Amino acid sequence: MQNKKILAIDMDEVVADAVPRFVEWYERDTGIFLTPQEIHGGEAWDAVRPEHRELASKYVYKKGFFRDLPVMKDSQEVIMELMTHYEVFFASAAMPFKYSLEEKHDWLEEHFSFVPNTHWVLCGAKHIINADFLIDDRSKNFERFRGTGILYDSPHNQKETRYHRVQNWQEIREYFL
Amino acid sequence: MQNKKILAIDMDEVVADAVPRFVEWYERDTGIFLTPQEIHGGEAWDAVRPEHRELASKYVYKKGFFRDLPVMKDSQEVIMELMTHYEVFFASAAMPFKYSLEEKHDWLEEHFSFVPNTHWVLCGAKHIINADFLIDDRSKNFERFRGTGILYDSPHNQKETRYHRVQNWQEIREYFL
Repeated sequence: MQNKKILAIDMDEVVADAVPRFVEWYERDTGIFLTPQEIHGGEAWDAVRPEHRELASKYVYKKGFFRDLPVMKDSQEVIMELMTHYEVFFASAAMPFKYSLEEKHDWLEEHFSFVPNTHWVLCGAKHIINADFLIDDRSKNFERFRGTGILYDSPHNQKETRYHRVQNWQEIREYFL
Repeated sequence: MQNKKILAIDMDEVVADAVPRFVEWYERDTGIFLTPQEIHGGEAWDAVRPEHRELASKYVYKKGFFRDLPVMKDSQEVIMELMTHYEVFFASAAMPFKYSLEEKHDWLEEHFSFVPNTHWVLCGAKHIINADFLIDDRSKNFERFRGTGILYDSPHNQKETRYHRVQNWQEIREYFL
C-alpha cells in the first residue's frame, strides 16, 4: 500500500510538444510556415488559413502525428525527482485519436520507461482519474476532476485565470518539491 | 454536471470473452482442445501442458488476440439500461499488451458505440479509476480502488470470497437496477 499522493500528468503540450509536428506537416502540405506568434492565443489549427482549416483539423487523426514528438524540456528529470515523493501517472485523452494509442505507448516506452506502464492511462474525459493533482494544458479537464488542477501554460489557454499556472517544468518542480 | 454515480466496467472476461480465442489458438498450435473443465479454477495459460506454457503465455501479447472476441451475453442490453441511471466507463488494463490498444478501441467501437469514447479508459493499475463501482474479474483491481468492487465470476477467481460476486449480466442488472 502506497501512501504517496497521486499526481496525474497529461501528455500533449505538457510532456510532449505536438506543435512542431503540426507546424512541420502544415508547411509540408501548404508551404506556409506558422510562427509561434501566429499560434499564440489560440489552437494551432485555428491559426491556419481558412481554406486549410479542414486539412489541418485532420492531422491529429492521422498515423504518425504523435510519434517522435519532442520531449518537453526538463520534464524527464523533474518527473523522476517527483516520483520519490508522489505516485506519478500519465493520463492522456487519446481515445478520439485511434492511431495515437500505440504511438503514445511507444513514445512513453522510449522517453519515460522509468514510469511503469501500470501508470499510463489513455482515456477521454478526465474526471475518471482518481488523483490528487492533475497537470494539464486544458482547463476543461479540471471541471469535474476531484483533485487540484495545475494549468500548464500553452498558446491556447492564455485567457484562463481560474487555476494555478506553470510555465515550464522547473516551475512544476518548485510547486511540488 | 452529471450527478449520476460512476460505474466502471472491465473488458476482458466481463464484456469480452477472451477464453474462446485462447482455446482456438492453443488448438491451432498444438492440436489440443482445452475443455472448460480443464480451465476451471485457474488461468487458461496454466491449464496447458508444461511444455506449452511459454508459448501460451505469449498469446495475449500478439496481434489479433483481442480483436473479434465474442461479446458476453446480455452485456450490451444491460449496459444500455444501466446508462440511464449510471455514468458508465469502460476501464481495461490494456497497457502491457501494446497491440491490444487499437484492437480494444475497435472492439468497443463495433460493439459498444453507445458508450461514448470519452468514457473508454485503457490503463494498468485501476486505483487510478475514480468510480463508485468497478465490475471486474480480478480482485487485485479492487485493492486500492476507492469505490465498491463487484467480482465478475471467472474460472480463475473461484476462491475469492471477499467481494460481491455476479455470475452474469442479468445478475448485474438485478444488483444495480
